[in-house]
Amino acid sequence: MKIPVVKEILNANDQIAIENRASLDDADVLMLNLMASPGAGKTSLILATAERLPAEVCPGVIEGDVASSIDADRMAEHGIPVTQINTGGGCHLDAPMVRAALSHLPLSEMNILFVENVGNLICPAGFDLGAHLAVVVASAPEGHDKPYKYPGMFAAANAVVLNKADLLEVFDFDTDYFRRGVEMVNPSVPFFVVSCRTGAGMEPWLTWLLNRRREHASQ
Amino acid sequence: MKIPVVKEILNANDQIAIENRASLDDADVLMLNLMASPGAGKTSLILATAERLPAEVCPGVIEGDVASSIDADRMAEHGIPVTQINTGGGCHLDAPMVRAALSHLPLSEMNILFVENVGNLICPAGFDLGAHLAVVVASAPEGHDKPYKYPGMFAAANAVVLNKADLLEVFDFDTDYFRRGVEMVNPSVPFFVVSCRTGAGMEPWLTWLLNRRREHASQ
Repeated sequence: MKIPVVKEILNANDQIAIENRASLDDADVLMLNLMASPGAGKTSLILATAERLPAEVCPGVIEGDVASSIDADRMAEHGIPVTQINTGGGCHLDAPMVRAALSHLPLSEMNILFVENVGNLICPAGFDLGAHLAVVVASAPEGHDKPYKYPGMFAAANAVVLNKADLLEVFDFDTDYFRRGVEMVNPSVPFFVVSCRTGAGMEPWLTWLLNRRREHASQ
Repeated sequence: MKIPVVKEILNANDQIAIENRASLDDADVLMLNLMASPGAGKTSLILATAERLPAEVCPGVIEGDVASSIDADRMAEHGIPVTQINTGGGCHLDAPMVRAALSHLPLSEMNILFVENVGNLICPAGFDLGAHLAVVVASAPEGHDKPYKYPGMFAAANAVVLNKADLLEVFDFDTDYFRRGVEMVNPSVPFFVVSCRTGAGMEPWLTWLLNRRREHASQ
């Protein structure tokens, strides 16, 4: 009797993602894939994080947008090395786009690279970019039902950051209900409640991030 | 010399969209495709609109979500005929899904049918559902740069509704900048600034909607 051997053939995206991750490991750069709805605050989280990093940890950014360079311009204003990817209608980044962007960045001058994916709570979760960690940013105005409506995105997260927490009451946001929804699909995922505007809650997020950075550097 | 004749073959989605529109016309139902980011307020706009409709205009709803029936349950609580479509991971509705949903709705008992598309500011714009009008709902917390970042969605709109307008100041929202971005891709599109929570700005939107309803009925 012959037993069929099923060999998984990596698709082109996943193969290039592996190569991206290897390049980043060689350069000792930890890459995070930030995913969120439009306007949840990915750019704000990157900026609020970057300004709180210790001097020896240097950030870089890849900005993904359907169109425009609005966010990349903001990064550049803050002196952060940045490359813009415009998808021209595409609803998510993919590994080949990130590979192209990596070739334009001074990897030897950075330790953490934030990829700001296209604002979309569905499609980006399906594409490995070569990042080490996936971070999903939610925000109070979107409502506490999002994990129940978009479970795939929250299942893909290595950390969930709930932003605009200074407005939880304005939006009658039930944080426990939100968190139960996240834990239904991702039971032990680290969860941070922050306000990038006021800076509230940034310390636990930074501690987590710097610990991940330290682990990666020691590998 | 032969001149090549290029004949556009309709794809399956567009063919079914035409059939959906014909079914709706036969039933004298105006169908609107509501598209927005997650949490912009599509459900709230439908509810705030439905409760202000004159008695002779009866609404119905098709709810599109990746998962859950949270919004459909809210509609049913308000006595509105509703059918839920779960895409099971899919990032947009398509015409076959809507055809299936139409068969579950009492079309003879309604005049306006709202389709609440999946929360996504990119993919839904590319799929004709058979709706007569596309309405894009934006919201103040998402930020005033959205038309510049997601031009395809705003180009596809027959009307743009800016929701959560009671919080424009909280989010430093520049309405003129937002509107200029919309008009760059869609110069004369009707534009409404509303707060579904307070009811502010609902009258012009309702007038526009009822005029479109009247035009459709008289065709």
